[in-house]
Amino acid sequence: MARALELAERSVGVSSPNPAVGCVLVQRDGSLVGEGYHEYDKLDHAEIVALKQAGEKARGATAYVTLEPCSHQGRTGPCADALIAAQVSRVVIAIGDPNPQVNGQGVAKLWAGGIFVTTDVLRDEARALNDGFAKYIQHRLPFVTLKAGVSLDGRIAPGHVPMGQTHYITSEASRAAAQRMRHASDAVITGVDTVIADDPLLTDRSGLPRRRPLLRVVLDSSLRLPVSSKLVKSAQGDLLIFHASPASDRVWGLEDAGVRLERLEAVDGHVSLPHVLKRLGEMQVLSAMLEAGSRLNSAALAQGIVDKLCLFYAPRFLGSDAVPLLADGGRIEPAMKRISWKAIGDDVCFEGYLHNPWN
Amino acid sequence: MARALELAERSVGVSSPNPAVGCVLVQRDGSLVGEGYHEYDKLDHAEIVALKQAGEKARGATAYVTLEPCSHQGRTGPCADALIAAQVSRVVIAIGDPNPQVNGQGVAKLWAGGIFVTTDVLRDEARALNDGFAKYIQHRLPFVTLKAGVSLDGRIAPGHVPMGQTHYITSEASRAAAQRMRHASDAVITGVDTVIADDPLLTDRSGLPRRRPLLRVVLDSSLRLPVSSKLVKSAQGDLLIFHASPASDRVWGLEDAGVRLERLEAVDGHVSLPHVLKRLGEMQVLSAMLEAGSRLNSAALAQGIVDKLCLFYAPRFLGSDAVPLLADGGRIEPAMKRISWKAIGDDVCFEGYLHNPWN
Repeated sequence: MARALELAERSVGVSSPNPAVGCVLVQRDGSLVGEGYHEYDKLDHAEIVALKQAGEKARGATAYVTLEPCSHQGRTGPCADALIAAQVSRVVIAIGDPNPQVNGQGVAKLWAGGIFVTTDVLRDEARALNDGFAKYIQHRLPFVTLKAGVSLDGRIAPGHVPMGQTHYITSEASRAAAQRMRHASDAVITGVDTVIADDPLLTDRSGLPRRRPLLRVVLDSSLRLPVSSKLVKSAQGDLLIFHASPASDRVWGLEDAGVRLERLEAVDGHVSLPHVLKRLGEMQVLSAMLEAGSRLNSAALAQGIVDKLCLFYAPRFLGSDAVPLLADGGRIEPAMKRISWKAIGDDVCFEGYLHNPWN
Repeated sequence: MARALELAERSVGVSSPNPAVGCVLVQRDGSLVGEGYHEYDKLDHAEIVALKQAGEKARGATAYVTLEPCSHQGRTGPCADALIAAQVSRVVIAIGDPNPQVNGQGVAKLWAGGIFVTTDVLRDEARALNDGFAKYIQHRLPFVTLKAGVSLDGRIAPGHVPMGQTHYITSEASRAAAQRMRHASDAVITGVDTVIADDPLLTDRSGLPRRRPLLRVVLDSSLRLPVSSKLVKSAQGDLLIFHASPASDRVWGLEDAGVRLERLEAVDGHVSLPHVLKRLGEMQVLSAMLEAGSRLNSAALAQGIVDKLCLFYAPRFLGSDAVPLLADGGRIEPAMKRISWKAIGDDVCFEGYLHNPWN
């Protein structure tokens, strides 16, 4: 299953809006006879890729697959049927299909086909790869991860940095980890204040293959986004602005620069976050990273749209005139589950789930 | 050496103002023939305790000792001579004597006595037990550790807590670890604002034995300490107030309540921190924990009196109207060494050295 998970990781970035899945076929003598992972553009599910590779050698083998084989006809035929037809002897599954209309039917079909099935092997590891798919398939909304680099005194940016100059809080290793998170996401969301302060690029610079470009989303209620920003200059259909302004010269100017704009309802003068998520869901965005400033971080937490926190702490102080992680005056204490702290060089990455997309 | 370190840990709290030291004597067949640790009140150094226990069996044994055996006559005779007289065959040492006037002379004496010596075994672990001794023996100043419990957004207390009500940020496990830190310290330092806000007891509640009571130190320039506070009510010669006020009724009132007071020079209206450290050094305080509020934390960091940071982060937010770790407007970026993050349940403990007392 560990090998199947490795394959599923290769599926990340190329499977969306389908789940990332890996499959390994092992014969009784321990020999690996087939393996595969799902790529959306190549149609075949991971099981089919592995079965085609194994050919006749699939008979009697054990299939290790990171997600319950499908039981229904979608863009491709049901994998459960294909495994039965190939006469594998046993299927080991990491996680069930999170779609409540499907969950368990793949397993039932395999049992009915005379195949021995084991489930929940390396479940948590497999789930982490498909949090976005799990939330999307049930709610048609993206799974939102709030990511930030934070100093020991809870600050996300120094108080005074010359315009346009980049200041990194965390180490190169932490920033590389954050790039891999972007790679695993369909979209990144920020606020116009962050764009004006930092002039970020917000691209996926992981160097890993991805099927769809990372959608860069800016919440910009009154359309203050500078046309001269790196974001606008690098727009190639992958920059989406949600605003709440009437049609104006600014709208035409940004559209001429290749920026997509959508007007949404405003609540208290700001674009409504639930509406943003709903629209992203309609665009088949399964997962989004929130990389924003104090105000948007606080609003997103207070409105409950954040599913997971990923905070990289670096061993330094920025002082109390620096930008805090949260701007909201009130106390926000969401209950956190599955908490972990992982050392990354001199930094540490805190992870915690605010909502579990798997139940 | 691991066993010798365990013994040295038992020495913590009962050896000050001497170092915490453990010693194990092992014969060639692997049998343990003697072990001991230093307790100041019992005079004997760890080596002597172990040698007395071993008696004749010390001959030919290997001595594992966490600190270089002394070469000079102090309250007791030199341990290097005792080891030579007992005819041990080999001495394995974790760390050299940090006293620059002594360092290496114990080893030299052993070599001259025909004993084979190995040094620097489990050095970092042994050093951590005697950071206070190392700084004190060289500078006659206590080693200062800034300790705080911090939320994910860098806050050390909620904005609004009813007077006198205790609010814990970190878990029970982290608080127990902080109590063990108090046990290993000779003093704890706080500011009067923290006393007024939290009404803490600041005692060592680790339950572990200690020779001298934990000295509780309050920096209270204008003598605002409430006589009704838990600190004053529990004072038994272990509460010391540094102030900068003229003699007054308040001074007499506090002294009547069993509080020790010392008047120090004020700098910008506040008691001078270097003077506080100097006075504590004169009282044979080897190590002090700074458990204070934003202002004192910032002042201590800015003035460079903090040697080590120990920050316990808990998975929660307190919001921007809560009390920040640092109050100072300016940026404080001390260079940190020997950085570590240790998970304690759902919390994490960050440790970093600002000054190395060992060089």
